[in-house]
Amino acid sequence: MSAERKLYEGKAKILYPTDDRDILLAYYKDDATAFNAAKRGRIQGKGEMNCTIASHLFRLLESRGISTHFIDCPTPDRMRVRAVRIIPLEVVVRNIAAGSLCKQTGLPLGRVLKSPLVEFFYKNDELGDPLLTRERLLMMELATLEQVERLRELALQINQILSDFFATCEITLVDFKLEFGFDGRGNIILADEISPDTCRLWDRTQTDRDRRVMDKDRFRQDLGNVEAAYEQVLQRVLSVVG
Amino acid sequence: MSAERKLYEGKAKILYPTDDRDILLAYYKDDATAFNAAKRGRIQGKGEMNCTIASHLFRLLESRGISTHFIDCPTPDRMRVRAVRIIPLEVVVRNIAAGSLCKQTGLPLGRVLKSPLVEFFYKNDELGDPLLTRERLLMMELATLEQVERLRELALQINQILSDFFATCEITLVDFKLEFGFDGRGNIILADEISPDTCRLWDRTQTDRDRRVMDKDRFRQDLGNVEAAYEQVLQRVLSVVG
Ligand SMILES: Nc1ncnc2c1ncn2[C@@H]1O[C@H](COP(=O)(O)OP(=O)(O)OP(=O)(O)O)[C@@H](O)[C@H]1O
Ligand SMILES: Nc1ncnc2c1ncn2[C@@H]1O[C@H](COP(=O)(O)OP(=O)(O)OP(=O)(O)O)[C@@H](O)[C@H]1O
Ligand SMILES: [Mg+2]
Ligand SMILES: [Mg+2]
Repeated sequence: MSAERKLYEGKAKILYPTDDRDILLAYYKDDATAFNAAKRGRIQGKGEMNCTIASHLFRLLESRGISTHFIDCPTPDRMRVRAVRIIPLEVVVRNIAAGSLCKQTGLPLGRVLKSPLVEFFYKNDELGDPLLTRERLLMMELATLEQVERLRELALQINQILSDFFATCEITLVDFKLEFGFDGRGNIILADEISPDTCRLWDRTQTDRDRRVMDKDRFRQDLGNVEAAYEQVLQRVLSVVG
Repeated sequence: MSAERKLYEGKAKILYPTDDRDILLAYYKDDATAFNAAKRGRIQGKGEMNCTIASHLFRLLESRGISTHFIDCPTPDRMRVRAVRIIPLEVVVRNIAAGSLCKQTGLPLGRVLKSPLVEFFYKNDELGDPLLTRERLLMMELATLEQVERLRELALQINQILSDFFATCEITLVDFKLEFGFDGRGNIILADEISPDTCRLWDRTQTDRDRRVMDKDRFRQDLGNVEAAYEQVLQRVLSVVG
């Protein structure tokens, strides 16, 4: 795992090749970034916590019939995953209005949506991950109409499974970002991570609008106790998966 | 037309009531703004030029079966229009990639689109007129699905008519913004203006990427000769409508 062998270093993870070309090793870092990396910092222990949380969520999804890139975790901060060709889309599912949805629509923070909203953003840091209309997505040939429909269907299924799971943890799944890719056989499978870095999670045992936040918004908005919030998510996940 | 009687003052026009409550008088100003009014200036003679250009384009559209708010022009910078309840959407039609489409997708300036792209932006200065997906538009109840389909259909018809017309003026209609509203009988009709302020127009007799620009981009990008460009559009329109 020397620097020479890195396949790709992102903002939150480093991908390493393995002896098997179909398998990658994802090392989860403590590094935290927000606002397209304009804000940078570290969340102590995040790598291990996110990797462990993600591993349990991937296992849960697999058990419910969703194909993911997850294989196993050789150490608490490393995940073996199936190598995929990432589709350059951030697939966002929203149950409650927050973040850019509020900024761009004027909807109040916390407004419960009538039905889950699936949105696509162009995974492109240079352009600032802009929102895509279906027409733009198709025009840019980022996916075919059939693939968009499949991504939407998978995203909604995943939302149902994760929302139910987090509810048993006394956590509300506000919204989350997914990345998908094509595996060796051309199937679309879930990749990347699912963690407090990529989900908005609200503690149902708290009513205060800042205290309830258990995700990267604590870092984004300087709410403090970032590590403790991630740790709390981890503990609740562990207590439910037993 | 005293200040007291103003119904609404926008960035480019002032609306005055008339003795007939179904009719408004729109006074076209020389004021120019760009980037959500972060940039401000004046384009000498713009009011008259835009009002006259718009009047001819509205007449053309009416003659081709499109209902508009246009009644007549009592003076060259004033237009009598039917009062409507404006739908808070900027309906944009694009034939060639330019402006925010390039910024948000990475498409190169000047890329001819395979088919015209109809897009909806939320007419809301505070939020910066954000792009809307169909899902967001419907969720925000800015229009019904039926109304969105109607707006799309009207926008494409208008694009066909205007593109053909401008072609006879040796001008390429790159893109343009429309506003629609409900008239007294609840019908959707075309309102606001169609002018070099609201269209991107490229001179077909010029190949240079800056020299060809005949619209507000000359002001936005400080390309100079803004008045001359608007005057040239007016002259070509007049020469074709005879
Ligand atoms: N199974 C996989 N196969 C290949 N690439 C993957 C897989 N899972 C995730 N990736 C990619 O790994 C990269 C590293 O993840 P990380 O979260 O650090 O990136 P990022 O900084 O958030 O995003 P990016 O660098 O792509 O803009 C991401 O580009 C992600 O798309
Ligand atoms: N027929 C009409 N009836 C009622 N309002 C109209 C009609 N036509 C245009 N308007 C409205 O007149 C206003 C003034 O136009 P102007 O172009 O100056 O506004 P703007 O500054 O571009 O936009 P706004 O102030 O609405 O953000 C606009 O809000 C426009 O929607
Ligand atoms: Mg990432
Ligand atoms: Mg206007």
